[in-house]
Amino acid sequence: MSNRKSIRTDIAWSTPSTITVKGFDLCKDILGTLSLGDIAFLELTDRLPTTRASVVFNAIAVTLVEHGLTPSAIAARMTYTGAPEAMQAAVAAGLCGLGSVFVGSMETAARMLQEALPDSSKKVDFDQLARDIVARFHGHKQAVPGIGHPLHKPEDPRAPRLFQIAAENGFDGPYIKLMKRVAKEAEAVYGKSLPINATGAIAAIASELKLPWKIVRGVGVMARAIGLVGHILEEMREPIAREIKTRAEEEATAHLRKA
Amino acid sequence: MSNRKSIRTDIAWSTPSTITVKGFDLCKDILGTLSLGDIAFLELTDRLPTTRASVVFNAIAVTLVEHGLTPSAIAARMTYTGAPEAMQAAVAAGLCGLGSVFVGSMETAARMLQEALPDSSKKVDFDQLARDIVARFHGHKQAVPGIGHPLHKPEDPRAPRLFQIAAENGFDGPYIKLMKRVAKEAEAVYGKSLPINATGAIAAIASELKLPWKIVRGVGVMARAIGLVGHILEEMREPIAREIKTRAEEEATAHLRKA
Amino acid sequence: MSNRKSIRTDIAWSTPSTITVKGFDLCKDILGTLSLGDIAFLELTDRLPTTRASVVFNAIAVTLVEHGLTPSAIAARMTYTGAPEAMQAAVAAGLCGLGSVFVGSMETAARMLQEALPDSSKKVDFDQLARDIVARFHGHKQAVPGIGHPLHKPEDPRAPRLFQIAAENGFDGPYIKLMKRVAKEAEAVYGKSLPINATGAIAAIASELKLPWKIVRGVGVMARAIGLVGHILEEMREPIAREIKTRAEEEATAHLRKA
Amino acid sequence: MSNRKSIRTDIAWSTPSTITVKGFDLCKDILGTLSLGDIAFLELTDRLPTTRASVVFNAIAVTLVEHGLTPSAIAARMTYTGAPEAMQAAVAAGLCGLGSVFVGSMETAARMLQEALPDSSKKVDFDQLARDIVARFHGHKQAVPGIGHPLHKPEDPRAPRLFQIAAENGFDGPYIKLMKRVAKEAEAVYGKSLPINATGAIAAIASELKLPWKIVRGVGVMARAIGLVGHILEEMREPIAREIKTRAEEEATAHLRKA
Repeated sequence: MSNRKSIRTDIAWSTPSTITVKGFDLCKDILGTLSLGDIAFLELTDRLPTTRASVVFNAIAVTLVEHGLTPSAIAARMTYTGAPEAMQAAVAAGLCGLGSVFVGSMETAARMLQEALPDSSKKVDFDQLARDIVARFHGHKQAVPGIGHPLHKPEDPRAPRLFQIAAENGFDGPYIKLMKRVAKEAEAVYGKSLPINATGAIAAIASELKLPWKIVRGVGVMARAIGLVGHILEEMREPIAREIKTRAEEEATAHLRKA
Repeated sequence: MSNRKSIRTDIAWSTPSTITVKGFDLCKDILGTLSLGDIAFLELTDRLPTTRASVVFNAIAVTLVEHGLTPSAIAARMTYTGAPEAMQAAVAAGLCGLGSVFVGSMETAARMLQEALPDSSKKVDFDQLARDIVARFHGHKQAVPGIGHPLHKPEDPRAPRLFQIAAENGFDGPYIKLMKRVAKEAEAVYGKSLPINATGAIAAIASELKLPWKIVRGVGVMARAIGLVGHILEEMREPIAREIKTRAEEEATAHLRKA
Repeated sequence: MSNRKSIRTDIAWSTPSTITVKGFDLCKDILGTLSLGDIAFLELTDRLPTTRASVVFNAIAVTLVEHGLTPSAIAARMTYTGAPEAMQAAVAAGLCGLGSVFVGSMETAARMLQEALPDSSKKVDFDQLARDIVARFHGHKQAVPGIGHPLHKPEDPRAPRLFQIAAENGFDGPYIKLMKRVAKEAEAVYGKSLPINATGAIAAIASELKLPWKIVRGVGVMARAIGLVGHILEEMREPIAREIKTRAEEEATAHLRKA
Repeated sequence: MSNRKSIRTDIAWSTPSTITVKGFDLCKDILGTLSLGDIAFLELTDRLPTTRASVVFNAIAVTLVEHGLTPSAIAARMTYTGAPEAMQAAVAAGLCGLGSVFVGSMETAARMLQEALPDSSKKVDFDQLARDIVARFHGHKQAVPGIGHPLHKPEDPRAPRLFQIAAENGFDGPYIKLMKRVAKEAEAVYGKSLPINATGAIAAIASELKLPWKIVRGVGVMARAIGLVGHILEEMREPIAREIKTRAEEEATAHLRKA
């Protein structure tokens, strides 16, 4: 037993009279002072956000809350239909689908930017970095993450708005610059319009906020949990999951019934 | 097929150039203006919060973000250990345990208050309501929800702080009054100190904010999703799940190895 | 630290050269000898099934594997669409909905039978027990669990088949007898045809097999996990989740687009 | 709407008097005839297993049911502690961790074998294939999947037993041969003992049974769902999750309490 590793957390602890979160007294320092977005920032960075960082972080998180009747929202609603007594499990079911195809793409974009620019204070040749990045994805016949959108054409309106908020608050730094160069280079190489989408903008801004790319997906997960609770509330009041299921089942098995 | 029910959602939708959430234009009305807590309030109430409602709602949500190394946090960390490529599933695993024992108790407390006082503008005899409520739980040999705490003694410091924030912002209304009477009556009937805990305070304040009791658990679910991302980030950097598992497994099977 | 409780499991453990499950040597006693259904029985009862118990247990488990395009299957498929790299999370999402509405009803039926008849060897008045049970549910304006079916009319074909298998294997005991009396009594009291459904048959047979009612839902959970893997395999090959989502989203937001 | 894709499933459907699963009548053809393992085989292959294939498939599935107090089992138990009314969500939480680190490694091994040998009837140079495979993993500084084990030394007892069962039932084919050559070649290249482990044996045998590698992880997911129900049953009777949590929390925050 001598080779035991120690077990340690620095996130939060309680005594009979106090609760401490990331070194702050919950009742004295946090409640009434920090918003939900601010404490999310604290969880992710171990720092309190400045006022301007708070505006920027909240903007990217808010962008991710609600995308309408997504596969994830449908999964949550279907789950609620079967287990209305366990709403938390319905939210959980919805979150399970935030993988590589949807929310996970932010992670890929943030990784691309942070690996290309590990030290944001260093002078670099942005054009060269962008060329290298695009050449690599193109060489692997992969799509460059963070650009293009199937619906939002000619451009995703969230990207310029998020960049505007970042600029107004002093976060118009090298990751955003690199993301823009990447998009421009990709349009030349792939030969089509590929403006930065919400994913790319969020990945770049999260990098400006010094969120490590490995946790960027987490911003989407926490934000979407909020949106999924909203979907479950609507499902409580105006249920649609059963009707969606009934129609799908009827059509999907019609060819079998004829036999 | 004539008896088809229609399928309808009013939460969000997109066109090529716009995203609309609860009737607001995401890019023009929401981003840069609403915080994460505010959009959570919008999801739950279909209203934008006033400045004062925003402070109060954020306070109850923030209270629920982080409770340290809970069973839920351990479940998330264990899951991350096995599937680091699917962080969303680790958060989901953590949320699955937010049931009747922990976060669900807020729902029970909010239901108790809202069923006793379905119309908060009506004049009622609070003492009589409190007596009826306590008598009912006592008669069923159940604990009254929202009062007492195993660790926080003599009182849960979050409850007075949350009530203070509510009062400062004009939300010191009938549900808080009723919750306080219930605690006082319960102390008399059960014959022990039973001060209002965080759960009871949140249930009362959520009722003041007009959140239906059926969705009150959802505030805990969305808040805890934020905290769980924080735990996963710490687990990435300073892993403890495997060591917790190794120790538990060794002790738990020691009697079998001797045989 | 003196009040530490010990941590103990008796399910399984390993040494460098052996794996032991419920006291049996995995390689010598189990592999090649026990089927998947048999080891499930062992997990639930700490006993190896007799040949006849194995047939009966496998029959109820098999009944629960596959119910077609259920809400649960749709949740799993939606999840797979977003996170194809985490199939386990798609199965998990599907399982989350096996709550009170669908699979959980078996638990309610098994509880009803086992609480009415805690000692199956004791002589009882079955007619009186059935009258008491039905009167209680009727008094609470609740449906009696395990009887009636929205689709399978005039009767659920699984129930007589399962009872036949139970009888052929010597498991036609008091719980099945009680379930049948309950259905008959309920038809008289509720004034409509209420034949035993699959849920009721499984609850009664599980009780004959001495499965505690608290774990009966678990038979459904383990069985459905098998079926959900089947749905994910079909979704890999012939995806339908996106189309289901696209149609639902288009119709559900059509009224908003007109505005 | 003319570009609608059709929605179709061929797994199961019901009429008022029949339930059909994969083309078989549930009541007439399946119940009392097929075991749980057999219907799992049917779900994965669209074929009924021969008697010998059934023995082999059940053996690999049974191997995966129970691995003791794993991170996955602890996640399920922690979840049950908070939401005992939603056992299905506890199993789901446990499954969420069956990712790349544990069960997912079977998928990697099966992919390695099936991509090297897409047509098992074709004549190939097994030694050359093994050399190519090992050189590729070695070149990427990756571990070869399916060989070596941290605990089971000098060899994993499950591998020879599973290969014996496969051989006795006529499934000692080219994928097993290739897996063995890979292990031998890897021992030479990596310069250490690297016998085939359970993962490697299962991957090879699943390939002999013609399970596509993309679904091989699913065998682990369905099997482990069975084991997790067993852990929840033990947790109901002899709870350990809270004690594991209490100890971990106390040690993990001890350094903070001193401050």
